[in-house]
Amino acid sequence: MPDISEPLIDATRLNALMGEFAAHGGTADGGMHRLALSAEDGAARDALGAWMRAQGLSVTVDAMGNMFGLLDWAGPGAPVVMTGSHLDSQPRGGRFDGAYGVVAGCEALLAVRARAEAEGVAPRCNLAVVNWTNEEGARFQPSLLGSAVFAGLMDGADARGRRDGDGVSVAEALSAIGYAGEGVFAAPQAYVEMHVECGSVLERAGGRLGAITRHWGAVKYRLAFLGAQTHTGPTPMAERHDALLGAAHLIVALGAMPGRCEGGVLHASVGRLEVRPNSPNVVPGEAVLFVELRSPEQAVLDWAEGEMLQLAEAADVAARVRHEVRFVDRRAVGFFAEGLVALAAGAAGELGVGMGRLDTVAAHDAISMIALCPSVVLVVPSVGGVCHDPAEFTRDEDLALGAEVLARVLWRLCRDGIDAAGVA
Amino acid sequence: MPDISEPLIDATRLNALMGEFAAHGGTADGGMHRLALSAEDGAARDALGAWMRAQGLSVTVDAMGNMFGLLDWAGPGAPVVMTGSHLDSQPRGGRFDGAYGVVAGCEALLAVRARAEAEGVAPRCNLAVVNWTNEEGARFQPSLLGSAVFAGLMDGADARGRRDGDGVSVAEALSAIGYAGEGVFAAPQAYVEMHVECGSVLERAGGRLGAITRHWGAVKYRLAFLGAQTHTGPTPMAERHDALLGAAHLIVALGAMPGRCEGGVLHASVGRLEVRPNSPNVVPGEAVLFVELRSPEQAVLDWAEGEMLQLAEAADVAARVRHEVRFVDRRAVGFFAEGLVALAAGAAGELGVGMGRLDTVAAHDAISMIALCPSVVLVVPSVGGVCHDPAEFTRDEDLALGAEVLARVLWRLCRDGIDAAGVA
Repeated sequence: MPDISEPLIDATRLNALMGEFAAHGGTADGGMHRLALSAEDGAARDALGAWMRAQGLSVTVDAMGNMFGLLDWAGPGAPVVMTGSHLDSQPRGGRFDGAYGVVAGCEALLAVRARAEAEGVAPRCNLAVVNWTNEEGARFQPSLLGSAVFAGLMDGADARGRRDGDGVSVAEALSAIGYAGEGVFAAPQAYVEMHVECGSVLERAGGRLGAITRHWGAVKYRLAFLGAQTHTGPTPMAERHDALLGAAHLIVALGAMPGRCEGGVLHASVGRLEVRPNSPNVVPGEAVLFVELRSPEQAVLDWAEGEMLQLAEAADVAARVRHEVRFVDRRAVGFFAEGLVALAAGAAGELGVGMGRLDTVAAHDAISMIALCPSVVLVVPSVGGVCHDPAEFTRDEDLALGAEVLARVLWRLCRDGIDAAGVA
Repeated sequence: MPDISEPLIDATRLNALMGEFAAHGGTADGGMHRLALSAEDGAARDALGAWMRAQGLSVTVDAMGNMFGLLDWAGPGAPVVMTGSHLDSQPRGGRFDGAYGVVAGCEALLAVRARAEAEGVAPRCNLAVVNWTNEEGARFQPSLLGSAVFAGLMDGADARGRRDGDGVSVAEALSAIGYAGEGVFAAPQAYVEMHVECGSVLERAGGRLGAITRHWGAVKYRLAFLGAQTHTGPTPMAERHDALLGAAHLIVALGAMPGRCEGGVLHASVGRLEVRPNSPNVVPGEAVLFVELRSPEQAVLDWAEGEMLQLAEAADVAARVRHEVRFVDRRAVGFFAEGLVALAAGAAGELGVGMGRLDTVAAHDAISMIALCPSVVLVVPSVGGVCHDPAEFTRDEDLALGAEVLARVLWRLCRDGIDAAGVA
C-alpha cells in the first residue's frame, strides 16, 4: 500500500470480508470449489445478502439469480453506478477470481458513503454492488450467463434451460438454493469491475494496477467426434472407427495452430473432453471436445475458426470417424470505456501508482455490460499469473490498493456525476 | 442347427434361460448394462443361484464373489470338470458376451445329467458351472479379476481393494450386493468355456464353431500426463503445460504404431481418458490414459511396450508436461489345451460341423485357468463381429449349436474320465 494521506477504504475490513466468503467452498489447500448455484454458492450468496441488508442496501434478486444491493442515497431516478463481480468459482479453483471484485465493491461502497457523509456531499448517483450468476462457465455454459441475460445479449429462458453435466438446469439449480428471484433491476449508467489479473502481464512489468482497455474475442465450439463402439481386443485396427483418436488428432493440430500466427495473437485450447463409454477395453464411440479459440484481432479469430473446421475434417479422415458441431458461442473483440480508464488512471496517480493498459483474454461480466453503459475492468496482479487453480494468490497490499482505486473512481462518479467525470 | 439324431440339449430351455438373465440390466435397444457387482449384477447372480439350487447343485460363493454350482454326482474326490463364464457386461454392452457361456454351461449340465441317467452311466467326474466376478474390467481393473485370484495369479486382498471410478472398492461392492462369500472351491481338473466370438473371423470363413488355441498377450498401462492447471484465456501458449495435449500426442502416436508392424500383429488403443478438472476454460492439469497393447507374438508386445514409453517421453516434450506410470498389467501370450481342442473338434464332427482354430485377442477367464488345468474356449459367431455394443448378436441356431458341442465335450469327459478323453 503506498503512502496515502487520506485512504478511503479499510483494509482490515476488506480482508475480513474476503475471509467470510472464503468460508463457503474454501478448500484446505487455500483454493476454492464453489460452482455456480451449488450449495456452497448458495451459502456465499446468503452471506452477501445478509451483508447488504446489514448495510441498509435494498436487495434485488432477478430471474437469473443475479444479486443487486442498492444504495439509493441520490434518490429514485438518479443515475446508477454499478460495481461487483461474481462469487462462483472454477472446480478446485482460486479464492480471488470474482470474489475479490464483489468484496472490493462492498468495501468501496462503505468507503464512499463514509467519505460523502464526512464531507457533507450530496451524491449525484446511486451506487449498486452486484454478484453475477455463473460467470465462470464451469458448471453451465456459456460463461457470463447472468450478465449476458441482464445486458439483453442472451434470452433468459434459454439461459435458465441450460443444463450441467448431471442434467440439472439453471432454473432447477436456482430454485434449489432459493435464488430464482422475481426482481428486476434497471440498467446502470456506468459499470466498474475490480478483478485479479489472472495473468502475469502486470507482474512482469513491475506494475500493481491495470485497466483493461480491450477484450479478446472468443469462439467456443462443442464438437463431437462419432465413431463405432467396439472391443479394443479383436477388432482389426483397419476396421476401427475410434472417436477418441479423431479427437486426439484435432487436439494436436489445435495445439500447433497458435504457433502459425506471429505475436501470440491466437490462443487455442481444449479444456474439456467427454469420452463415451470411456471403458478401458472399448473403442470409444463418441468424444466431445470443448474447443476455445481466442484472439485480440477479429480477422485472426475468423481465420482460426475456419481453419479449425478444416482440421476437424482432416481428423475425421485420419481416424475414419465423422464429427458434428453441437454448439457454437462467439464473442467479438471489443473495447472498454476510455473515460473510465482515464478516471482510474487519475485515481492511481493520486496514490503515486502507475496504471498499465491491458487486454483481457478471459471473459469478464464487464464485457456483457459494454452493451448497456460505459464499462471497465480494473485489475491487480496475480502472483505468478496463476489463475483457476488453488495456488491463485494476490497480496494483501495489492488487494487493498485495488479497492482504494475502485473507491476513488466510484467516489468521483458519485460526487461529480457521470457526465462531469468525463464518462459519457 | 444341423440334423442331430440325438441332441443332448434343449434349445427352448436354453433360450428361456438367456431371457431370464437378460431381464437384469437389459436395455431397451437390446443391449446390456450390467456392470460387475452392480445392483443388476446382484439380481442376475440371485437368479443364477436360484437356478443352481433348483437343479440340486451345491452353491459356493468365494471371497471374490465367484459363484460355483457343483453337481457332485461322481462323489467327493472325483475330478471336477468346470464350465461357465461371466454375467458382468460392459457399460451399454451386449447380451451375449459372458452370459451365453454361463447359460450354455447350465444347459449343458442338465443335458449331460439327463444323458447319463438315460444311459445308466456312472460319471467319472463331477461337473461345475461357474460365474466369474468382473471379467470385463469395465468397472474394476484389471479384467479377469475373479478368475485371476482363483487361479492364484493375483492376490485376493489386492483385488478386493481395487476401486471403481467412484472410489468404491471391490470388497465394498461385494458386500453391498451380498456376494462377499466365505466359501472355497478347489481347482478343477479341466475347464471348458463357451463364448460368442466377439470378432468376425468365423463369420468371414463361413464357420459356425471355433476353438481358441492361442490367446494374444496384452500390456495395459494407466499412464498419467501431468501439466499445470491454468486459465485457457490469458495464459500465453508458450507458458502452458497442457496435460490433455500431451495425452493427445500419445494417442495419435499409438494410433500409428500398429501400422508399423506387418500382418496386423499389433493392436493399440486408448479406451478411457480421464481429464482433470475437465472444465471448458481450464487448461487440463492431469490426463490419465488407459492404454492397451495386444499381440499374438511376445516379441512384438515387448517392442511395443518400450516404444510406447518412448512415445510418451516425446509427448512430454511436445506438450511441455511430464508423465508417470500408475499401473501396469502384463499378460503373456499363451496357448490352450490341445486335448480339449481335439475333443471339441470330434463333437463338432459328430454334428457335421467344421471347427475353426482361432486366436483370441480379448481376455477370457479361461486364460486365467490355464495356470490350473487344461483349459479351452469354444466360440460361435458374432453377427458382423460386433461386440461390447448393444448391437452384439448371435443367432439362435448358433447359440444352440455351441451349447450342443459343449454338452458333448462335457459328456465325453464325465463318461470316460479326463485322462481317457485324451486331456492330460
